Amino acid sequence: MLILITYDVNTEDPEGRRRLRRVARHCVNYGQRVQNSVFECVADAATMERIKRELIELIDPEKDSLRFYRLGAKYQTKIEHVGAKPTYDAEGFLAL
Amino acid sequence: MLILITYDVNTEDPEGRRRLRRVARHCVNYGQRVQNSVFECVADAATMERIKRELIELIDPEKDSLRFYRLGAKYQTKIEHVGAKPTYDAEGFLAL
Repeated sequence: MLILITYDVNTEDPEGRRRLRRVARHCVNYGQRVQNSVFECVADAATMERIKRELIELIDPEKDSLRFYRLGAKYQTKIEHVGAKPTYDAEGFLAL
Repeated sequence: MLILITYDVNTEDPEGRRRLRRVARHCVNYGQRVQNSVFECVADAATMERIKRELIELIDPEKDSLRFYRLGAKYQTKIEHVGAKPTYDAEGFLAL
């Protein structure tokens, strides 16, 4: 199952910038970074619930926002990319 | 049908910042901004193709990135939000 994780972290203060780094680092452990704050993660439901819980602990729910989009198992035809490929240190698909 | 539009626009130069404004403004015409560069748009296939073409014309494909995720008609159960609601001038759902 593919889950899309998108986030907005308020970086107006140093603590916010720390949260952003932690959220990004956590997502990189589980998924493929495809845009600045957009990750694609292939995982089973149980793993996905754990990832969500861990990410929720990293953000400040008053200031930051996490969104999860379930694209299911047959996701290849549901995704279209136009333009520059990400230059992030994509680690390839991390299927869990 | 719900389409998720996410984008990364390179804003290192003034032209890039102009492109970013144009892309954001264009997305606001068709969808609900849910995060900084994440829009949800409810539209039929033909309208979606037009929106894509228009957005592709606004970006620099060498520097910027657009991604489209088709979540289908029954999308409500596929989306989960945690944390702060967007403070963008959300215009409510723009069903086309």
